[in-house]
Amino acid sequence: MKSRYKSYKTVEDLPKLAGETVTLRGWVYKKTGKGKLQFIQLRYGTGIAQCVVFKNNVTEEAFAKAKALTQESSLTVTGKVVASGKAPGGYEIDAAGLEIIHISQDYPISAKEHGDSFLIEHRHLWLRSARQHAIMRVRAVIIKAIRDFFDASGFKLMDSPILTPNACEGTSTLFETKYFDLGKAYLSQSGQLYAEASAMALGKVYTFGPVFRAERSKTRKHLTEFWMVEPEMAFFDLDDDMDLAEDLVEYIVECALRSCQKEFAVLQRDISALERIKRPFYRISYSEAVEWLQKNKVPIIRKIDGRDVESPFPWGEDFGTVQEEALMEQFDKPCIIHRYPAAVKAFYMKRDPADDKLSLAMDMLGPEKAGEIIGGSQREDDYDTMLERIKEDKLDEADFKWFLDLRKYGSVPHSGFGLGVERVVKWITGAKHIRETIPMPRMIHRIIP
Amino acid sequence: MKSRYKSYKTVEDLPKLAGETVTLRGWVYKKTGKGKLQFIQLRYGTGIAQCVVFKNNVTEEAFAKAKALTQESSLTVTGKVVASGKAPGGYEIDAAGLEIIHISQDYPISAKEHGDSFLIEHRHLWLRSARQHAIMRVRAVIIKAIRDFFDASGFKLMDSPILTPNACEGTSTLFETKYFDLGKAYLSQSGQLYAEASAMALGKVYTFGPVFRAERSKTRKHLTEFWMVEPEMAFFDLDDDMDLAEDLVEYIVECALRSCQKEFAVLQRDISALERIKRPFYRISYSEAVEWLQKNKVPIIRKIDGRDVESPFPWGEDFGTVQEEALMEQFDKPCIIHRYPAAVKAFYMKRDPADDKLSLAMDMLGPEKAGEIIGGSQREDDYDTMLERIKEDKLDEADFKWFLDLRKYGSVPHSGFGLGVERVVKWITGAKHIRETIPMPRMIHRIIP
Repeated sequence: MKSRYKSYKTVEDLPKLAGETVTLRGWVYKKTGKGKLQFIQLRYGTGIAQCVVFKNNVTEEAFAKAKALTQESSLTVTGKVVASGKAPGGYEIDAAGLEIIHISQDYPISAKEHGDSFLIEHRHLWLRSARQHAIMRVRAVIIKAIRDFFDASGFKLMDSPILTPNACEGTSTLFETKYFDLGKAYLSQSGQLYAEASAMALGKVYTFGPVFRAERSKTRKHLTEFWMVEPEMAFFDLDDDMDLAEDLVEYIVECALRSCQKEFAVLQRDISALERIKRPFYRISYSEAVEWLQKNKVPIIRKIDGRDVESPFPWGEDFGTVQEEALMEQFDKPCIIHRYPAAVKAFYMKRDPADDKLSLAMDMLGPEKAGEIIGGSQREDDYDTMLERIKEDKLDEADFKWFLDLRKYGSVPHSGFGLGVERVVKWITGAKHIRETIPMPRMIHRIIP
Repeated sequence: MKSRYKSYKTVEDLPKLAGETVTLRGWVYKKTGKGKLQFIQLRYGTGIAQCVVFKNNVTEEAFAKAKALTQESSLTVTGKVVASGKAPGGYEIDAAGLEIIHISQDYPISAKEHGDSFLIEHRHLWLRSARQHAIMRVRAVIIKAIRDFFDASGFKLMDSPILTPNACEGTSTLFETKYFDLGKAYLSQSGQLYAEASAMALGKVYTFGPVFRAERSKTRKHLTEFWMVEPEMAFFDLDDDMDLAEDLVEYIVECALRSCQKEFAVLQRDISALERIKRPFYRISYSEAVEWLQKNKVPIIRKIDGRDVESPFPWGEDFGTVQEEALMEQFDKPCIIHRYPAAVKAFYMKRDPADDKLSLAMDMLGPEKAGEIIGGSQREDDYDTMLERIKEDKLDEADFKWFLDLRKYGSVPHSGFGLGVERVVKWITGAKHIRETIPMPRMIHRIIP
């Protein structure tokens, strides 16, 4: 598209500008120099260009300005673009002129190692580092891949609301707010119930927005606010659901590999691990997984009287990180675990017709300790059964009247899942902690900046 | 991309399937019939196909099933696809077989006119109507257009958080929640402050997500939860900002015209009004607007002692709906009003160097009573001035420490704006009320379903 706004050239445009004289704007990423030479690494967007300021090529005033520049000062540089294998970013600017916009004083983040808590307190500045740029860029590519995947496959975007009058998956982990004269509202933990209404209206839909968990979990994988995409499909059974989940994850990895080679280099990510992510992935049932855990002596650890007590993993318990990581050590691709005990899964999941103790649920675990990246199921589509489940869970029937309506007026088999964006970004980038995978992470001890 | 999941054919695929025999799934949108013929309008996605069930062509059982179908019953139909100018949607299915999935009983929404409150109470079912499908499809096209516009123009997606420790635009209209042991958190009214941090890190960025206003506004244009895209650009001044805003709106309308002809027909939208939306739009200053209002005797109406008192519109007051609609009657394209009195605009806006009483603010008003669809400004980039503004507004300096840091370390001129998605969808679709422009609207008296 043709833009009318002043489309200044940026460091990211340099590959198209070799040989030309340009004026670039940006910030000082690093600076070195001695005698008659100043080397300024100019950053803009996700690019860095080395600007060479040679005393003989510029005015005395401009050279003095170059010397005065500090880390993160803002400036414009004018000069010729020269391809250079040695320069960071592959291009150099032979500076002919230079203007200071603003001198940064005592920038708190230096080249030296900083502690985690220092960096996260300065998240608004930490975002200026090349490593964070790379992660944010991979994040954006993944989000675009997800949207393109669904838009190109006949799915309709149907965003679910954040403010909801009731809880989808338990009430203990909800953020609560007052909603005018209508009592309390809660921040959505999942858009699924609404996505089900949308799927009955439009067939294949997806909702994609932030969701919230007021969990007191302090791990490398938990955020209190994160982005989730949730497709919901009329006429899909559990097998279709698992196939779609594999399709999506394969496509995401493919797009990241296609678009983020530069970023993976910055992140020193082993991309061979990602190149293996090709369908079919692995699939095992929950019962098979339990058998494997028992055979391989992966125990369950329970707190009894304040002490950790180990015992063989019993059928019926939900998996924790210990079990998931042990199971996944066998696999270099994602694995879907399906047909969990109904007792550990949500009320809206359909029971397995072959065994009423099981839910037609599925979780996709990622390799390389990625953990659960997808959770989904076929949904209960029978009105009476759903009503019974709502009562069993002691949920308020009135709150679910509209949800029950979906089973009353042209009910159909349907399935869906949720994919947590930050978990996937963490896995694909190899980030050590999930707080690096979102611009402004929200965790139990962190709401600033 | 090639999918492995069972990609059943849908009503939306019919144009590619003429002459073939297919099995379709869906719901009964309408049904008529007499004697040996049953006409079923089968809906799926945003498509409708007429299925002709002729007694002589199907089993007696299948014909009985067709007769038993009610509005919104779910079914599969097998038959040959025939192009037909007379059929709604342009294609007919000559049914050879038919299976009922689920009979819908006493579907509450019929062809007859329903009151607004009835429809909104049944939003989960109302979404099944052709008119709502059309609006939702235009909404999705607009959202995709916005994302494509920014992704293709070098902008980085940098989503701002929803949970924030302080208010961006006043505290009286915030949803509040408890945040663990860190005190109160508020639902974001705008991602702008965070977008500014992102722009200093990456140059041109955008944030795109739900935002919240706990306003007691009960109009056709207000939602308490709505989606907003907010671009923020380092090195952009107010003129660049206005140019970008025009570019974006022109592109959105262009995409809608290209992709939504069918939807506009369903909505009976006068598309000639949209075809006029070509740059340049109109631009007038606030002072020029006030002059026009005075000359054309558009008054301000104030409540004094419980009575409405009219007086000439005085320079310095903010515009309300009365003034905006009067001003826009002159224009068949959007109009940007710029340089408002600083007193009616937010603390973070830069003052006009030519007149300190003015903010470098701009609002874009849409034609056809669309109201304000964009609000933006150049931002104050001087540390001391920003600190002064924060103190003037009696905001807590400590809350804005990180925001002030952006003026401390390589500050640059920068600008941005916010575009409200639902306002734009309302304008482009011609929807009467904003509640039709989002799947599950949230308003002062509405949080269910």
